[in-house]
Amino acid sequence: MAASAKEKTLDDLFLETLKDVYSAEKQILRMLPRMAKAAVSDELRKAFETHRDETEGQVERLEKVFEMLQKPARAKTCEAMQGLVEESKEILEDFKGSGALDAGLLASAQTVEHYEISRYGTLKTWAGQLGMKEAVSLLDQTLQEEKKADALLSQLAKQAVNQKAA
Amino acid sequence: MAASAKEKTLDDLFLETLKDVYSAEKQILRMLPRMAKAAVSDELRKAFETHRDETEGQVERLEKVFEMLQKPARAKTCEAMQGLVEESKEILEDFKGSGALDAGLLASAQTVEHYEISRYGTLKTWAGQLGMKEAVSLLDQTLQEEKKADALLSQLAKQAVNQKAA
Repeated sequence: MAASAKEKTLDDLFLETLKDVYSAEKQILRMLPRMAKAAVSDELRKAFETHRDETEGQVERLEKVFEMLQKPARAKTCEAMQGLVEESKEILEDFKGSGALDAGLLASAQTVEHYEISRYGTLKTWAGQLGMKEAVSLLDQTLQEEKKADALLSQLAKQAVNQKAA
Repeated sequence: MAASAKEKTLDDLFLETLKDVYSAEKQILRMLPRMAKAAVSDELRKAFETHRDETEGQVERLEKVFEMLQKPARAKTCEAMQGLVEESKEILEDFKGSGALDAGLLASAQTVEHYEISRYGTLKTWAGQLGMKEAVSLLDQTLQEEKKADALLSQLAKQAVNQKAA
């Protein structure tokens, strides 16, 4: 039986959030190929493709953390990521063929990265509190990848600005 | 008449995103008092109250940017923030009375901060590209506030961990 609200502990919160992020990553796996296909610049397309491959590894890491908890890897629909994906789809539709499409896709991808940076930072802190050293290390690997992906997108956004200015 | 997708430029993308963030901030203004009321620790409650006051100033800055564009300040429902707020509400309900409530509220607030950090970073870059120097400065003021708010929340999350460990 599920714990009542009052009985719930950090273990429950950690597991709930793990399920949320697992759902988020699966949504991202479906979205990134669409964004790669739509991207106009080669660099941006490659960035989306690379991040798609990275995301597969991130899903596997989450599955390892579920195993450590001896829980089945189960997604719980991440409503935040649904909203973020919805906004990406709007950009794809509203700016199709526009010179600003890549800028919009870049910005959408950065909102997704930031959601993940926030979530993995939190999960890592909680795993530390729960004494799950191996999980801390796995979650940190993903956190660093997400930060790197965001930095690359910021760099591409600024390059685009400089190219237009030149 | 609205521009067709192909005719849309960075100016359109900037305005659309401004409307999205304006909606996001208004949603945050409604949510923060609920989170402050629910927070168990005084420090966390104060952090939410302070950020609520800051958010009012951020809304005013957005209104100034709308003015610079000679456009009415109008919100366009930010679906990403709707999802983030939905997740905060779930924490409020599912962890009411639990010792992990504050940790959950903290984490939710950080996902909100990260959405804003990402959006203001993007808006600032675009304002620069569009030659809107004054807007760059206003958007950067908010960006720095959001980063500071996120850093404070990270610090509170780590303090909570250390207190439990002690």
